[in-house]
Amino acid sequence: MSAQLTLYASKASPFSEKVELALREGNIPHKYFEVELFNKPAFFADKVNLVGKVPAITYGGPDVSPEDPSPLSAKLAESNVILEFIADAYPEANLMPTDPIERAKVRFFIDATNTTLNTPAFAWVRNSDPDAEEKLLKAIEVVQNLLPENAKFAVGDSYTIADACITPYFHRLLINTKHDVGRFPEGSGTRVGELLEAPKYARFMAYLRAMVNRPVAKEVFNEETVTAAWRKIFARS
Amino acid sequence: MSAQLTLYASKASPFSEKVELALREGNIPHKYFEVELFNKPAFFADKVNLVGKVPAITYGGPDVSPEDPSPLSAKLAESNVILEFIADAYPEANLMPTDPIERAKVRFFIDATNTTLNTPAFAWVRNSDPDAEEKLLKAIEVVQNLLPENAKFAVGDSYTIADACITPYFHRLLINTKHDVGRFPEGSGTRVGELLEAPKYARFMAYLRAMVNRPVAKEVFNEETVTAAWRKIFARS
Repeated sequence: MSAQLTLYASKASPFSEKVELALREGNIPHKYFEVELFNKPAFFADKVNLVGKVPAITYGGPDVSPEDPSPLSAKLAESNVILEFIADAYPEANLMPTDPIERAKVRFFIDATNTTLNTPAFAWVRNSDPDAEEKLLKAIEVVQNLLPENAKFAVGDSYTIADACITPYFHRLLINTKHDVGRFPEGSGTRVGELLEAPKYARFMAYLRAMVNRPVAKEVFNEETVTAAWRKIFARS
Repeated sequence: MSAQLTLYASKASPFSEKVELALREGNIPHKYFEVELFNKPAFFADKVNLVGKVPAITYGGPDVSPEDPSPLSAKLAESNVILEFIADAYPEANLMPTDPIERAKVRFFIDATNTTLNTPAFAWVRNSDPDAEEKLLKAIEVVQNLLPENAKFAVGDSYTIADACITPYFHRLLINTKHDVGRFPEGSGTRVGELLEAPKYARFMAYLRAMVNRPVAKEVFNEETVTAAWRKIFARS
């Protein structure tokens, strides 16, 4: 019998979604507890993650209810740390290559997602940088240049934590562009959506579509719920 | 015979120093090529790292001169990606624990160094945030809280990439505090140095001293060279 694993997450959070995608793509048995972002239960900061951030996991210890975490389980936080942990603890899930160079490629792709793409993507939806739209499009080019031709996956021939890491950004980019949701100037969302249909971004968009069309991605991502949450969080004032 | 490894680095760069520390602590045979930060040789961006940043490594391929890198070697960049690669490719160097939970602790510590500590440390020396001194001291407390009591190492009982990752920050903090070097207001460096001697920071300082007093750290870090470089880069205008 394998150790218990409980994921504390929020459907609206892209960082939470990464972890849920990896667990489900890897067929890793786990419990899921939805933490309401603006109404977190007291036990969460008391017993799971002192800084109160999602995602967090408990691993091992007795098989208890998520609302009553045991002091005997290990507690881990930070989405990228959790992704690597899952790949380490469940090698049979095949979420990381075994070759050191291929593993480095996965981590380089994750680093590009976390730094190059994350910064302008959030600056854009928060409208905190007037050049965010342009910077976002440049970041998308950087990511595209990392993709192999006819890429089915970010690295190699199978699903890795690199794919899990970027897919939540794709889901949110689709919300931004389809519904113009974000604090950016009105119309910027739909414009970016149109620009991304140019041949220049074909490789990126083919990869994006392959990721969001995966059965697990469709199960994990609830477009309506996340759109409603993002409309609220990133409403134009 | 193991594959060739060449490190392209700059003595002034904390990111470069991380990688050199890990290679030397792990007794991993390698060549070292110093890249002058403000006078980079053309071959570096052409043949090693397209974005021209240090550190970068070449791994494998024929055993060539560092000035003439082979197209047959793998090229890796980003200091944290390289640290994980070294731990993967040289398991005998014992730079990462084997237990998944312990590995997650190493990565959590590295994440705290890269995000919590790096941001205020650079804001302080660049004088880009008036609250940087206070934020730096808070970040130091966060890092201290991750350390075990009487910590000889960041995680567990032996040297890991977590130790290699934070040591360059310690070296630079000592330059800042000893010589008041940085663009922060005059006296802020020496004041932080005095504050850190308070009992409140005893665990952090004991760990810092253990790290900078390691023979390899003394070999890698040239105080005079780095102090001169930082005086130039972060001169008060």
